[in-house]
Amino acid sequence: MKLQLALDTCNTEEALQIVGEVENSIDIVEIGTPMIIEYGMEPVRKVSEQYPNKLVIADTKIMDAGEFEADIAFNAGASIVSVMGITHDETIKGAVKAAKKANGKVLADMMCVTNLEKRAIELVELGVDYICVHTAHDVQATQSPFASLAKVQRSVGSERCAIAGGINEESINNVIEFKPEIVIVGNGITGQKNKAVAAKKISDILHD
Amino acid sequence: MKLQLALDTCNTEEALQIVGEVENSIDIVEIGTPMIIEYGMEPVRKVSEQYPNKLVIADTKIMDAGEFEADIAFNAGASIVSVMGITHDETIKGAVKAAKKANGKVLADMMCVTNLEKRAIELVELGVDYICVHTAHDVQATQSPFASLAKVQRSVGSERCAIAGGINEESINNVIEFKPEIVIVGNGITGQKNKAVAAKKISDILHD
Repeated sequence: MKLQLALDTCNTEEALQIVGEVENSIDIVEIGTPMIIEYGMEPVRKVSEQYPNKLVIADTKIMDAGEFEADIAFNAGASIVSVMGITHDETIKGAVKAAKKANGKVLADMMCVTNLEKRAIELVELGVDYICVHTAHDVQATQSPFASLAKVQRSVGSERCAIAGGINEESINNVIEFKPEIVIVGNGITGQKNKAVAAKKISDILHD
Repeated sequence: MKLQLALDTCNTEEALQIVGEVENSIDIVEIGTPMIIEYGMEPVRKVSEQYPNKLVIADTKIMDAGEFEADIAFNAGASIVSVMGITHDETIKGAVKAAKKANGKVLADMMCVTNLEKRAIELVELGVDYICVHTAHDVQATQSPFASLAKVQRSVGSERCAIAGGINEESINNVIEFKPEIVIVGNGITGQKNKAVAAKKISDILHD
């Protein structure tokens, strides 16, 4: 299991600093959608330059122009780009094509997908690497992702699974039995007083 | 009917230049998703500063964190932000809340929405200003938007309608009978030898 740190509410300088603090405990740095909306590819470029041993995912949430938009992120240094699992197959194929050119990977965010098992299988057949069960920030108060994670794990296997949305050092205990390849933590690290300690605790649980 | 120029494949300097060329014929400048992925809010900021009489829409295609992400775009000078119509109501409400604070507007992109009429009505009830029938770039070869436009126009009225995807000086003749409030043209202007002439032709058809 890999630990992915999601950075959503900071600027590029703060991102570089936070990654420095938790570097030893994380595997992947996510430049979140709000950061991309504000700063574009600048944080992707700088984090991937300064931390060449970390994978960087650009959470582009691509809905259209799959190859063109994924190209932008891969050219900026991303190792992984995200697409919305709900979008057109042609868009998914375009992002996969861009990933192949760049020797990168594609993560499909399953937000708003209703038939999870069926779509997960289709997406893997289209060449998607990771299927991300994602409880949207805006609905975390009312939705839990664990039943969805179980479904996706059964349909495409643990090694294709990623999980995001409200994961922290408590809720992670509901996640590890499914052994998802990628566990995405944002506020569970960035919102903690001592980020390094929080990241290490979560990393230790994942690698226990 | 308003003419919206969609800018997707240029950089900020080129955007400023193109807007200058077609200024007299267009009402709204769209900073497209690929530009936002590459440059963040820089083009939104610069175009809205340099052309204060034009409305600027940031095509953020928001899927989550509605208020937070819409705030970013409105704070950068956008008059309108886009959300995905398919996403959670909570996210739509967040974007609408941000719009109210900023005295801005919200456009919902209906890409991948299956029950167009029903969702259009729901979105308007949630406070969305415009319902955009959008044929994705990646499927323009196989899908036509005019039947969808007719449905949305019947359900929420012309003044709520926007249309995007492959509109040019020929296909626009299939659009005008529905009198959508916003007609979005990208390559139909930016891909033409003389952009000013192309924009004027389309504007003349809209205002005939």
